[in-house]
Amino acid sequence: MALVVMKFGGSSVADADKMKLVASKITAKKNLGNKIVAVVSAPGDTTDDLLEMADKITSNPPAREMDMLLATGEMVSISLLSMAIDALNEKVISLTGPQAGILADLDHTRSRIKKINPKKIKDLLAQNNIVIVAGFQALNRKGDFTTLGRGGSDLTAVALAAALDADFCEIYSDVDGVFTTDPRLVKEARKIDYISYDEMLEMAGSGAQVLQARSVEVAKKFGVTIHSRSTFSDKEGTYIISEEKIRRQKMEELLVSGVTFDKNQVKFTIIDLPDIPGIAANIFGALAKIGVNVDMIIQSAAVDKKNDISFTVSKNDMKKTQLELDKISPSFESARVVCDEHVAKVSVVGIGMRSNPGVAAQMFALLSKKGINIEMISTSEIKISCIVDKTDMARAVEELHKGFKLGKK
Amino acid sequence: MALVVMKFGGSSVADADKMKLVASKITAKKNLGNKIVAVVSAPGDTTDDLLEMADKITSNPPAREMDMLLATGEMVSISLLSMAIDALNEKVISLTGPQAGILADLDHTRSRIKKINPKKIKDLLAQNNIVIVAGFQALNRKGDFTTLGRGGSDLTAVALAAALDADFCEIYSDVDGVFTTDPRLVKEARKIDYISYDEMLEMAGSGAQVLQARSVEVAKKFGVTIHSRSTFSDKEGTYIISEEKIRRQKMEELLVSGVTFDKNQVKFTIIDLPDIPGIAANIFGALAKIGVNVDMIIQSAAVDKKNDISFTVSKNDMKKTQLELDKISPSFESARVVCDEHVAKVSVVGIGMRSNPGVAAQMFALLSKKGINIEMISTSEIKISCIVDKTDMARAVEELHKGFKLGKK
Repeated sequence: MALVVMKFGGSSVADADKMKLVASKITAKKNLGNKIVAVVSAPGDTTDDLLEMADKITSNPPAREMDMLLATGEMVSISLLSMAIDALNEKVISLTGPQAGILADLDHTRSRIKKINPKKIKDLLAQNNIVIVAGFQALNRKGDFTTLGRGGSDLTAVALAAALDADFCEIYSDVDGVFTTDPRLVKEARKIDYISYDEMLEMAGSGAQVLQARSVEVAKKFGVTIHSRSTFSDKEGTYIISEEKIRRQKMEELLVSGVTFDKNQVKFTIIDLPDIPGIAANIFGALAKIGVNVDMIIQSAAVDKKNDISFTVSKNDMKKTQLELDKISPSFESARVVCDEHVAKVSVVGIGMRSNPGVAAQMFALLSKKGINIEMISTSEIKISCIVDKTDMARAVEELHKGFKLGKK
Repeated sequence: MALVVMKFGGSSVADADKMKLVASKITAKKNLGNKIVAVVSAPGDTTDDLLEMADKITSNPPAREMDMLLATGEMVSISLLSMAIDALNEKVISLTGPQAGILADLDHTRSRIKKINPKKIKDLLAQNNIVIVAGFQALNRKGDFTTLGRGGSDLTAVALAAALDADFCEIYSDVDGVFTTDPRLVKEARKIDYISYDEMLEMAGSGAQVLQARSVEVAKKFGVTIHSRSTFSDKEGTYIISEEKIRRQKMEELLVSGVTFDKNQVKFTIIDLPDIPGIAANIFGALAKIGVNVDMIIQSAAVDKKNDISFTVSKNDMKKTQLELDKISPSFESARVVCDEHVAKVSVVGIGMRSNPGVAAQMFALLSKKGINIEMISTSEIKISCIVDKTDMARAVEELHKGFKLGKK
C-alpha cells in the first residue's frame, strides 16, 4: 500500500465528463490499495474568466481581493470532483488550501508556502477518505486566502507529498511526460523515463513548460518522486528523481538528456562601451530594478578601452529594456545599442556532461557542420546554451537531437 | 455616526455596472460618517449555474460538497465588490462567512447560525474599513463551509446587525419596500412606511416574498430595525420594527396593514370520515412525516358519526399528499377524498385587529357584498385568511384593499 498524491491540471477537469474520468482514475488507484490525496486546479478557463470579471471592475485590483476571487476556481473543482467520486460510492472529502493546513507568507498572488500542517489530511486518510485538495491556494497568518502564482497547483501537490511523506507525486496533464525535445518540432523525440531534478529545472528554464520550476525545487529539496504523466492514458510517464537514483537505475549513461529551445528571446548589444569599472553593474543593476530578467550575458575583451556587451532578455521585456537603456545611455558616451529580435536559444541538458567535458565541443561541432552560426554561448554544469539565428533554430534542434542520439531506439 | 449593515441581493450585483452602482451607494453612505458592513449574495444567476454544474456530475451530491461549491458564489461577489470600492479610494476588506465569525450548526444546505463572533469585524471597522461579508454562508465546528438555505443572505445581514448592535439593517432589493398589496394586481397599492415584525412574518407566509421569514424572526428577537428599500432609487423604503415602536410613531392606527394572496394552494377535502378519536392525528401525522406543510385545516361538526375535513397544502406538495392519502385511505372506511386546485388564499394582516374584534366581520361583509364565496376561514391574532375560488381572487384583493382604505391618499 502506497500513499500517492495525484495532481490534475485545469484541462483535466474542464467539464463534467473530464471530471468523471478523473474521478474514475482516482478511485481505480484507491482500489489498488493506495491512500490517495488528489490536488486539482480550477476547471479549464475559470481562472481567466475570473481575471476578466475583475478587469471589468478595475484595472488595479487589490491583491488580497484578487486572491479571494481566484480561490473560488479551485473550490469549484474540488467540490465537483468530490461529488463525482461520491457518485462512485467512495468515501471522499474536499479541502480548501487553508483547510488542508497549507500555510503561506503574507504576500498575495505569488505567496510562498511556509509550512504545512498535515494533521487533518492524515486523520481523514486514516478514516479511509480520498482527500481532494484545492491547488494553488493557502492561508496566511491573518486568516486570508493567498495564491501561489502561476503553476501553483504543482507546488501544492509536491509540498503535500513532502509533508505527508508520500511514495509518489503524480502530476497529470495532457502530455505523456517529459520528452527529449518538443515532438511537434522533431518527430523522433522520445519520452524520457527518468530525469533528475536539476535537468528538469534546466529544461523548464529553457522553455519546456511541463512542471512549475518551484515545484521541482521543492521536490529536490525533500526528495519527492514526481511522476509526470497523461490524464488521458494509462502509460507510464517520466519519473523526476534525484541524480543518485538515476545513476543507480541507468544501465548506460547518456551525455545529454534533452534538447530545448526558446524562441521568445531578444538580444541586445551595446557596442563600443567605455571600459570603465562598474559600468556593467550599472546597466544590469538598472534592469534588475525594473524587474527585467537578463538571461545570457557576454562581454568581449577590451580593445582601445572599449568593450562590446551582449545580453538576452525575454521578448515580453523588450520594450521595458529599451526604455531603460535610453534612460541610462548618457553614461555610455559614444556607445550604440543594437536590438536583435531574430534570435533563438538552443540548449542541451544532461547530468552526463558533469563527467564528460567534451559535450560543449561536440555541440559546437554539430552546429558548425550544418553551417549554423553561434552568436552567444553560456554554460552551466549540466546545460550548454547557444544563441542562433531564429531561422536556424529548428535545424539546430534536430541536428543536436540526432547527434546526441536522443531519438527513438 | 451610525453603524449600518447594508444587504444587497444577487440582482443588485449581477454585473460589473451594478457592482459599481452598489459600490458607490456604499461609499456614499460611508462618507456621510457611518460605519458600514455590507452583506452580499452571489451575483445574478451564479447559484443556479453552480447547481446546474453539480447536476451534470450527479443527481445526489453530498450536502457538504454542495455547500463548498455554493460558497464560491458569494466569494466572487465580495471580492469583486471590494475591488469596486477600492477603485473609489475607500479602505475596504472582504470576509467570507467563516472569516466574519459566523458560526453554524453541523447541518448542510440549510444550517442555522449558532453564534457570531464579531471581534474581527469590529477591529476592521475600528481601522476605518468598509467590511464586505459573504451572505448565506457560515462555518461549522468541523471547519467546513455551511449555507443557510434560500434567502440566507437576509439572515446573515440581520444576525450581523444584531451581533454588532447596528443602528439599521438595510435590505436592498429591486422593489421599493413592502406594499399594502401587490402593485401588479392593485394599482392603488401603497408603500408601507412602518410595519411590525409580526405583520411582516404574516405577510411573508401569505406569499409576499420581500424578506426571508427567519431573518424577520431574528430581527424581532434582537430588536433589529430593518429598512427594506430599493437598490435603484434613493427613496425611503419600509421600516420593519417592533409593534411598540409603531404604536408610538403612528398618529392614526390602521385596522389592517396589508392584503396578501397566494395562488399556490390546493384544497383537499375528506368527505364522510368516520368520527373516531385520533383519525385526524393519523392523517396529519402521516403528512407531517413526509414533509408536507399543511396550511389551513377545518373540520365540520360530526353528523351521524361522520365528519368532513378540509385542508390546504402548497401546490408543490399536491402529488405527495395524494399518494399519502391513497396509502392511508383504508382507515377512512367509506370516506372520499376530493382535491380542488381552483382555490386561492386571500388574507388581511394588521396589528390593529388585536384591539378591534370587528375586522373579521368586516372582511366577510366586503367579500359577500361582491358575491364572493368563502370556502374556508382561518384566523390568527393579526391575520384573517379566506380560501376563495381562484377566479375571485383578484376581485377579492381589490375589494379588501379598498374596503380597508389601504390605497394611496
